[in-house]
Amino acid sequence: MYNKVTPEIVEQIKAVCQFVYTGSDINPDYAKDEMPIYGTQMPEVAVQPTSTEEVAAVVKICYDNNIPVTPRGAGTGLAGGAVPLYGGVLIDLMKMNKIKSYDMDNFVVEIEAGVILNDLANDCLSRGMMYPPDPGEKFACVGGNVSTNAGGMRAVKYGATRDYVRAMTVVLPTGEITHLGATVSKTSSGYSLLNLMIGSEGTLGIITELTLKIIPAPKASASMIIPFEDLKSALAVVPKLKTSFNPQAIEFMEKEIVLASERFIGKSTFPQKVGGLDIGAYLLVTMDGNTMDEVYEIVESAAELVLDAGAIDVLIADTPDKMREAWAARSSFLEAIMEETKLLDECDVVVPVNKIADYLEFVNKTGEECELIIKSFGHAGDGNLHIYQCSNDLEEEEFKRRVDKFFEIIYREATDCGGLVSGEHGIGSGKVKYLVDSVGETNMAIMEGIKRVFDPKMILNPGKVCYRL
Amino acid sequence: MYNKVTPEIVEQIKAVCQFVYTGSDINPDYAKDEMPIYGTQMPEVAVQPTSTEEVAAVVKICYDNNIPVTPRGAGTGLAGGAVPLYGGVLIDLMKMNKIKSYDMDNFVVEIEAGVILNDLANDCLSRGMMYPPDPGEKFACVGGNVSTNAGGMRAVKYGATRDYVRAMTVVLPTGEITHLGATVSKTSSGYSLLNLMIGSEGTLGIITELTLKIIPAPKASASMIIPFEDLKSALAVVPKLKTSFNPQAIEFMEKEIVLASERFIGKSTFPQKVGGLDIGAYLLVTMDGNTMDEVYEIVESAAELVLDAGAIDVLIADTPDKMREAWAARSSFLEAIMEETKLLDECDVVVPVNKIADYLEFVNKTGEECELIIKSFGHAGDGNLHIYQCSNDLEEEEFKRRVDKFFEIIYREATDCGGLVSGEHGIGSGKVKYLVDSVGETNMAIMEGIKRVFDPKMILNPGKVCYRL
Repeated sequence: MYNKVTPEIVEQIKAVCQFVYTGSDINPDYAKDEMPIYGTQMPEVAVQPTSTEEVAAVVKICYDNNIPVTPRGAGTGLAGGAVPLYGGVLIDLMKMNKIKSYDMDNFVVEIEAGVILNDLANDCLSRGMMYPPDPGEKFACVGGNVSTNAGGMRAVKYGATRDYVRAMTVVLPTGEITHLGATVSKTSSGYSLLNLMIGSEGTLGIITELTLKIIPAPKASASMIIPFEDLKSALAVVPKLKTSFNPQAIEFMEKEIVLASERFIGKSTFPQKVGGLDIGAYLLVTMDGNTMDEVYEIVESAAELVLDAGAIDVLIADTPDKMREAWAARSSFLEAIMEETKLLDECDVVVPVNKIADYLEFVNKTGEECELIIKSFGHAGDGNLHIYQCSNDLEEEEFKRRVDKFFEIIYREATDCGGLVSGEHGIGSGKVKYLVDSVGETNMAIMEGIKRVFDPKMILNPGKVCYRL
Repeated sequence: MYNKVTPEIVEQIKAVCQFVYTGSDINPDYAKDEMPIYGTQMPEVAVQPTSTEEVAAVVKICYDNNIPVTPRGAGTGLAGGAVPLYGGVLIDLMKMNKIKSYDMDNFVVEIEAGVILNDLANDCLSRGMMYPPDPGEKFACVGGNVSTNAGGMRAVKYGATRDYVRAMTVVLPTGEITHLGATVSKTSSGYSLLNLMIGSEGTLGIITELTLKIIPAPKASASMIIPFEDLKSALAVVPKLKTSFNPQAIEFMEKEIVLASERFIGKSTFPQKVGGLDIGAYLLVTMDGNTMDEVYEIVESAAELVLDAGAIDVLIADTPDKMREAWAARSSFLEAIMEETKLLDECDVVVPVNKIADYLEFVNKTGEECELIIKSFGHAGDGNLHIYQCSNDLEEEEFKRRVDKFFEIIYREATDCGGLVSGEHGIGSGKVKYLVDSVGETNMAIMEGIKRVFDPKMILNPGKVCYRL
């Protein structure tokens, strides 16, 4: 149904874009994201535009010639969203990495979509400001974060990426450039195309520039490592902890994953035994406030609460160095798992906070039934669980068969208990069928209809989110 | 293009819905909202369903028979959104007014869409919780607030209605019932149909039930009445005041409108002269915090800031009674203006916070050029301005002609300075043409395409938002 990129079309593309790659000059990374289990595919042509106009000109050529286009940021996705499943042209946005300007009267920053999250976060901090979204992968680009409505550690207090997008410039699948939203914080001006574009994973348009809300950085913060005998008692205290103290972050982690990560980074911070008791799970919590006195007061009350609720100890990290150390293991979970695992799949289901414990028990039981190794950690404060399926000995086809069975069971349970398929990683190509089961045919048909309104030739990022061939 | 409601269809409707009205039994209020200048029209039939299923059954009959359907809440809209422009069936949702349940682990409340905002706010407060959205009209219904993404006083700190909607039950224009969103706070699970429905003014579906986020009510708060010599100096301090102290509300008001409102409520709280100086404008600011000590500290620092910046005085209201008094005049602006005015139109344009002063100067100059009486107040903290055009002596046609010219000029200026057509009132039927000018034909065509995806027969609330005949 799509056309191939002919040498003539390559010449057309070279006439409108400076950095164009074909054949063996194409970066092999472009065939995959961080989860190659969903399939790999090289594009026929890759381009690195340096402006919105270049993106638009390339897309226009593809639209006119019925050639699929796949936008790509840093390639850190976990659902296959950036893989050019149908070949065609891949648009790598990482050369569009300028932080353009700050507006300190309106507390917004204007950036190009290829800015690395870590760069934006540090640049804001150097001005006393904070860009609150804080996904685990700091080297994703912000355009990618917006495309998946990435959440991260601080979402429990500050919200997800969606809550910080004020406006954007978008190249539509036709090659037209449009602007959505405005610097203002309030709007009731027609359907929110801005919110529709957020989380649409590059299927409705290519986000090239962003106006983002920033806030004054909290003046003080401290983290608490809280060991428990088992995961169930760790999770039981989360609703109360969250509603009483409004922490910036509440992460949960089982002992095995912490050990693996500490092996990987070569440093041990989390206690494995306290007073003769074996530790089974941890909460890692960050509190923030206006002064260290205020934060100490919160930490003290929170410590009382968790100790009353069965915590074995509370370790406090109250300097930047100690906080970095406390969070180092958490930041390396994915790499640590990858290091130790041959075949890997993942989901980031989200369930109501007060149902995490029961749900994880169900997940572990299902993992046993499906004969898969399951490793879990996640954002306890907002019910967003990262559940890994691992194998070092299965054949790939058998592994995929078992994972599919596992997913069908645990996604159904998530839907039944009021949850959703993905909290922050998105649907990509890997989760389309589970999304249908979760939201139902009616909603799915509406999504497909919307896709066709934006993209009548269905050329943009085909095979993703709601596009079923 | 639409069919009329025949006696046979009335019988069908009566078979699926208990409260059905025809002819002179139809409430005459159903012909209009609070801004009758956009036209009035009686429906052929009015119904008051008591459940989602009843709504769905009525809509299904209308869909099958190609009859227009207009949903209506409390009828407090200001853009003609609830007027049944093409007759047909009006669905009044005000009998669906149950607050169903609170989930205090996940901090959400489930309600039917016809619950009155004031009832929800008070019910939450009685449990120590707050539903933050606080539009000026407390007797709107929450479903209507969601349909316009209503903002209100506290949006500057807490965000607009959109930020508090977790999930909803919707009757689609086909009569199908669907569910959007979930209790969870994070999602990356396909296009956000939830966010698309929010602010769509009853054109994409009829919202019948809502799951809303609530937060612990701030334990302490105080308001400041801050008189200035003129509006320009009042507005100049707003960006700094907002970014330094994160107030719950920052309203601005010119003297004339305060005087009119105080005449209307028969009580005077705002000083008109201080130390021989005539007051020209005011800021009304509310600060909140965990303790009164904290609030006093913030108020003191904020008072220093505004006095340094030219405020003539700072009056502090630090008890519930005094705060109610301070806000009483603000709450009655619209009624006060209506009381004194024969012909009235209104807009609620939104501009960046640091451009309010220049923009209002432009608006007043344009008002003079168009020979209209202009009265303004609004949410200084988020740039959402309420600008009234008034006349007591013009013919209606001449008034409309002048207002149209005035709108064209001031909306273009708002767009040029980075603003949008409406901050919280919506587009309804009254602002469609200005929306086109502001967002452009490309975005408008996408909105129309989306409308057709949800509503292939275009029966739901025709003539509103993006529907141009």
